[in-house]
Order: sequence, then structure tokens, then C-alpha cells
Amino acid sequence: MSNSDLIPRLRSGDRRALARAISLIETGGPTARALLAEAYPCAGTAHLIGITGPPGAGKSTLVTSLTQEWRRNGATVGVIAVDPSSPFTRGAVLGDRIRMQALSGDPGVFIRSMASRGRLGGLARATADAATLLDAAGFDLVLIETVGAGQSEVEIARTAHTTIVVEVPGLGDDVQSIKAGMLEIADIFVVNKADREGAEQVVGQLRTMLHLGRREPGAWEPPVVSAVATLGRGSSEIVAAAGAHRSHLRNAADRAASAQAHAERELSAALQELVLERLRGPLWSAMVDQLATRVRDPYSAAGMLIASLKGREPEKIT
Amino acid sequence: MSNSDLIPRLRSGDRRALARAISLIETGGPTARALLAEAYPCAGTAHLIGITGPPGAGKSTLVTSLTQEWRRNGATVGVIAVDPSSPFTRGAVLGDRIRMQALSGDPGVFIRSMASRGRLGGLARATADAATLLDAAGFDLVLIETVGAGQSEVEIARTAHTTIVVEVPGLGDDVQSIKAGMLEIADIFVVNKADREGAEQVVGQLRTMLHLGRREPGAWEPPVVSAVATLGRGSSEIVAAAGAHRSHLRNAADRAASAQAHAERELSAALQELVLERLRGPLWSAMVDQLATRVRDPYSAAGMLIASLKGREPEKIT
Repeated sequence: MSNSDLIPRLRSGDRRALARAISLIETGGPTARALLAEAYPCAGTAHLIGITGPPGAGKSTLVTSLTQEWRRNGATVGVIAVDPSSPFTRGAVLGDRIRMQALSGDPGVFIRSMASRGRLGGLARATADAATLLDAAGFDLVLIETVGAGQSEVEIARTAHTTIVVEVPGLGDDVQSIKAGMLEIADIFVVNKADREGAEQVVGQLRTMLHLGRREPGAWEPPVVSAVATLGRGSSEIVAAAGAHRSHLRNAADRAASAQAHAERELSAALQELVLERLRGPLWSAMVDQLATRVRDPYSAAGMLIASLKGREPEKIT
Repeated sequence: MSNSDLIPRLRSGDRRALARAISLIETGGPTARALLAEAYPCAGTAHLIGITGPPGAGKSTLVTSLTQEWRRNGATVGVIAVDPSSPFTRGAVLGDRIRMQALSGDPGVFIRSMASRGRLGGLARATADAATLLDAAGFDLVLIETVGAGQSEVEIARTAHTTIVVEVPGLGDDVQSIKAGMLEIADIFVVNKADREGAEQVVGQLRTMLHLGRREPGAWEPPVVSAVATLGRGSSEIVAAAGAHRSHLRNAADRAASAQAHAERELSAALQELVLERLRGPLWSAMVDQLATRVRDPYSAAGMLIASLKGREPEKIT
């Protein structure tokens, strides 16, 4: 398969071209960037939704149930499942297969697991770029599923317009510390496995915490929705809440500021990747040696490398 | 307090100078870099130990108990507690106070919580630099405590020579997915709260998982140590295991390769921070605008910014 017409082909609905483009994106490098440059102007219409929460919160089941709900409403759905164990395990592939079962055979759904395959920009960057491809391919919704509450999940959540944080009863008091961080990124809270004991307390706690947090006048108030994803319960409420959040964003006074902040993050990430890629070479190796022997500190070595950028040719995109 | 003699002063045991230097490091910028350049050649002797695990694993108690054990052995201990909720909450300050109680008044112990205060290089960078300061200040051990298993915890763990992963019984089957990732970064496993039901199963599971993972001949075999940190049980075994791991590292055939890999990560991180700092300006703002309106894609914007570095003056360190 040639790479030159991947974007036109994925835009015309060719799923093989889409899968191939995402693989190239995962690898990074000039080819990935050429694809992105072509896809970027075509993207910007999809609703990007991040779904995160602790392991065992039933996120995959929830994603399946939400996807089915959106499909009933006639919307197409692309799913990116980000596997945190991916630098280390092959869990991503298995995850794909399990998820595929309930949704397989529907051409309005596309599911892809992402793993960090050593791309310099990291998983957050690869995920953002894959979301751009799904967006350019015309999916109405792009769901990005991540696990946990680490810095990288927060970064991935920032790629999304709407972030859904999934909690469950029974994970103990210690989960409070995570919840505190999640409060700030959540646009919608879902208490999944709501048929379990303690679900009402979790809903109550979340509402109390949300109530205690100060919000600007006119700011979005995150709803807390109970769900039993295995039975599809709560899905229509969550889908409605996501739609309401998107409308809110479109009407928000700070819409321009938010777009700027998003663009700034995209730019920083792209820059980091590009700089690292360009600077690998003999001087890089020399600086690494000097650091390893403590002849030089990281920042002065970095300064030397940046100075060396001056004489370089601009990158050729193949 | 002047900043010019902070490094000599912290090296002579001035704790106020050390605290001030770490605060400057957290903020980043030229002052932080000047401090690092001065501290870097003096560092390299401390044993850096990362301690990570899920919320509720009792890591802080374990850190206290291990610190007490090392102090009994005559070693000095610097502790960096990395608070993942820090971008959002003020948990770090409270954590400091609670931890200080058991160890307060001992001049051979220094405890500091780190939070992400918007430094461009992120928390992992600030933590690595703070560890360098504690190392330069002459602490025999530098403990870096983090929560969770996200990308940033993995990064922070890479700063350390020895990584201790703490598990506890009773977190349910779903924790397996985290364990899979942790297997790769753990040099020592600690099953804390080993007086609880299910502890033996966790120990058994970990040993099985370790046994299943293939390791190179002559590679370190991570021990699994049971502990009850609240009673100090297991501390001497963990301290001994950490010492054994350090000896292993010193004798390892791939020692040079590992130092190189570490230097490479330090360099990449310093570079990212420096590049972002230098490029903020009118062209940056213009590129952000073009991205926000999708007139330009992130990588071509990044390319424009890198090209603009050519005409810049080298940074002046104040």
C-alpha cells in the first residue's frame, strides 16, 4: 500500500488506509508528520471525548455501551484505547480483540489500541495525532480511553473536548487522593457498577466534592451520572451529558482562549519531538558521554545542542 | 538569602540553603540551571531509590520505616515525596507535615515534597534535579516516593538506581494490569501490610510473574519482601536488598550502557525544557494562532520555530 494517498483514501471511508495511517503515526518521523500536515486541515469537526478512571472501573464496557448508544442515534464512533502497560506488555492486542466482539461488523465503528512504540513524542502525542486522523476520517465521535490518573492521563485528557471520569464503589478510602486530581479534569462523572453496595455514597461524595470546589460564574457544572455499563444503564444520560457539554463549549465566553491553550499544547509536543529527532547525531553522543562522566551538566549540554541547530538544513519530508 | 553561594552552603550542611535551592529548582529557568551546573559535578555518589505503588499501599509509612533503618546504620537520608495530585491540590504541604513527625529533629534526614509548579520540564525533571541537589548535599540515600503506575511515575523511577514497587493485599484482581507494567521497573518488590489476609497470595503471584518473565543470564532477580511498615517489619531486609542491588549495578557488565541511557534521558528532558523556554515569543504566538485556526499543522509550526532559533543569542545565566 502506498502512503501518498492515505489521507484521501481514509477520508473516503477506506478502513485499511486509516489503520495504516495510524500505524505510521505511532512510529512518528517525517512520514507521520507529512500525513498529519495533510489531515490537519480536514479535522476539527469530531467531538473528542476522553474516558478515564482507575483499573477495574469497567471503562471498556462503558465505551462499548456508549458506542452502541451513539450508533443508535446515527453517529459514527472511532475509539482509541490507550493501554498504560503498553511499554511493557502486549496487552493492547488482547484488549482490541475483547472489545471488538460486541461492536464488530459495524462499519460505523472503528477501534484501535495505542501503545507507546518508542515514538519520541510519547504516547500522548501519538494519541492526539491518531485522534486527528479519526477526526479527518469523518467520525462524529472520537473516544479516547485511558487508565489511571497520572500525568500522562491528564495530558491525554487535555486532547479531548469532554472528559468523562469513571468511578466505582468499593475501591476504598484511599481512592480519595485520586479523585481530588480527577475533579479538575472531569466534565462528566460516571459512577459505574451502580448496582453495587456503596454506589450512592460515591455519588454523594462526588457531588459534595464538586459542590466544595469553587467554579467561575457560568462555568460548566459536571453532572454525576450513575451507570451499569454491562446492562447499558445510564448510557443515554451520559451521551446526553456529553452533547450538553459540547454545546456549552461552543457557547462559552472563553472558547477562543481554550482553543489557544489547546493549540499551545499541540505545538509544544510537536516541537519536543522534532527537536529530539533533529539533534540525534555525533554531537548528541558526545554530550551524552560528557553527562555520563559528569564533565558537563544536562542544561549546558542542551544549550550546546541547540546552538548546533543553526547550521542545519530544513527537514525534507518524504 | 543570596543565591550565589547556595551550592557551597548546602554542601556544608546548611539545610535552609538546600531548601531554598530546591525551591529554585522547582521553578526552573536560568537560575535553576546555573545551580544545577554547579551541583552536577559534586553529585553522583548517593544511592537514588525510587519507591512507587498504588494509593493506599502505605508508601509513606514504609519510607519512614526504611529511613529509620538506614539511620540506625549510620547513613543519611534525603526524601523527595512526589505528590501526583499536586497540580490540583495542596496535598503536598499536608503530606510533609505528617511525614515529618516521626523523623523530625534528626539532622541526618531531609524531607521535601515536590509538586508541579508549572515548570516547563514537568515534575519528572524537577524531581531529577532535586535528587541531584540532595546528592550534592552529601546524603547517602535519596528516596523518591511516587504514587501510581503512569508514564510519569515510570519516568521518575528511571531517575533512580533502584526502584522499589510496593504492593498490598486486597486491592482486587484488577490490579494485575498495573502489576504487569510494574514488573519491568521493579528491582525490589515489597508486599506491605503483610499481616493482612491475602498477603501470601500476593507474594506468590509476584514470584510467579517474575518467574514467567524472561531475564538475561546474570541479570538481577528482583526479590519479593514481605513487610509491615507500621511495625518496622521487613525494613532491614529491604535495606539489605537495596544494598545488594547497588552492588549488582556496580559489578554489572552493562554498567556503562546504563549510565549512557540515563544521561540520554537527562539530556532529552533538559533539551525540551530549554527549547520551550527560548521559543516563547511573538513567532510562538503567531504559530499558536495558525494552529488554533487550522491554517497550519503542529509539525510545520514547530519546524518554523526551530528555524527561528538560528538567529538567537546564547542564553545568559544570571
